[in-house]
Amino acid sequence: MKTINSRRTIRKYSRKDVSEGLLKTLLEQAEHTPTMGNLQLYSVVITRKAEGKRRLAPAHFNQPMVEGAPVVLTFCADFRRTTLWAENRKATPGYDNFLSFLNAATDALLYCQTFCNLAEEEGLGTCFLGTTLYNSGDIVEALQLPRLVMPVATITLGWPDEYPARPDRLPIDGIIHDETYDDYTPARINAFYTFKEQLEENRHFVEINHKETLAQVFTDLRYTKHDNESMSAGLLEVLKQQGFL
Amino acid sequence: MKTINSRRTIRKYSRKDVSEGLLKTLLEQAEHTPTMGNLQLYSVVITRKAEGKRRLAPAHFNQPMVEGAPVVLTFCADFRRTTLWAENRKATPGYDNFLSFLNAATDALLYCQTFCNLAEEEGLGTCFLGTTLYNSGDIVEALQLPRLVMPVATITLGWPDEYPARPDRLPIDGIIHDETYDDYTPARINAFYTFKEQLEENRHFVEINHKETLAQVFTDLRYTKHDNESMSAGLLEVLKQQGFL
Repeated sequence: MKTINSRRTIRKYSRKDVSEGLLKTLLEQAEHTPTMGNLQLYSVVITRKAEGKRRLAPAHFNQPMVEGAPVVLTFCADFRRTTLWAENRKATPGYDNFLSFLNAATDALLYCQTFCNLAEEEGLGTCFLGTTLYNSGDIVEALQLPRLVMPVATITLGWPDEYPARPDRLPIDGIIHDETYDDYTPARINAFYTFKEQLEENRHFVEINHKETLAQVFTDLRYTKHDNESMSAGLLEVLKQQGFL
Repeated sequence: MKTINSRRTIRKYSRKDVSEGLLKTLLEQAEHTPTMGNLQLYSVVITRKAEGKRRLAPAHFNQPMVEGAPVVLTFCADFRRTTLWAENRKATPGYDNFLSFLNAATDALLYCQTFCNLAEEEGLGTCFLGTTLYNSGDIVEALQLPRLVMPVATITLGWPDEYPARPDRLPIDGIIHDETYDDYTPARINAFYTFKEQLEENRHFVEINHKETLAQVFTDLRYTKHDNESMSAGLLEVLKQQGFL
């Protein structure tokens, strides 16, 4: 797994296809990821056809990777299969609740990440689309996801056709806490964020957006309170519709 | 990452310690995992002291791994650091909502899984504790997690002192869906679950629990509707308390 150290998100892919055999092998190997009670509470919808990508694109704000990648994978929290299994085996399932959603989402996300690590070891490039949670209702519709199935992650996949710069990360001491949570004082915030704020690309980012600080680019433009609150309401609605609330 | 193919959960650890240097290196490498807007919406609390493990153990139903492992790691969805950063930079954060919780939980879980993959490549053993979501309020208290920090995953970590059998998994065709969700008919359920049901250990499991089917062991004993519903209510309460609802 040495590739993790040089990992970058890949948004441009070559025309070379990802073979069905390789994709299936990687998805199969990723099944060794831990899963609750060995129930494997996830499903993956594989989108290869142009029409399917066109249907998914608006849910992902038409980011070009969706239609540009040979493969789009939608990882779903899935308690439907387990529920149907139970119903077919004289058992009475009780998984239409919030805890079960989070258990299944956990399974799906862990599985997704092992898949990405494996794919990148093979030289494939991935882009994780955070938009899945923003417009989950549209994805439910596009992929015809039934009750107790909820999309939680989407990745685009293909052979890299770009070599972007590797993004910075916070120093590890900004992430870890010894024994109990060590709260962030202004001095610690400065220590952990100053490097990021002084990077040329981030200063440029602040400038072209006419902001005073990098944090304002996030709070005022990229991830605003207004959007977060309105999308939270939508997300809870879809969870209800899919039977998890 | 060939180790994934022989992965098993490790619950018994040798007395050999996990060095601080190795742990930090692995946690640092895992930072290359994709993260929303490069915000790294997670924190990890490292528990090494016996007292800390004793405090955590009841939240994990006193499973012996918690006190038996040299290291316990609690991965938290963390929007507090980003929020404090914003507040210290003349920005107005809006991350006290459900979408932000799920975004941060996603970041934390992806990060956790890359960490596990890396640790296992090093020969370390891990056990993923699903109990984190069951008694999250107790974990919040034990680790003194402030507002906008929520525990979402716990792993115990150490050098393996057992070599358990590798668990079965569903055939990959039971997990993947071509273009749209291909619903599970009784015939498909049979095709995917019969192997698991006929395994000696699972038949034994059904017998000692005086059940008729393996599914009943799950629905009636391991993950019951009653427990799920009562723990869902508790989980929503903790999310409210931590400021995410």
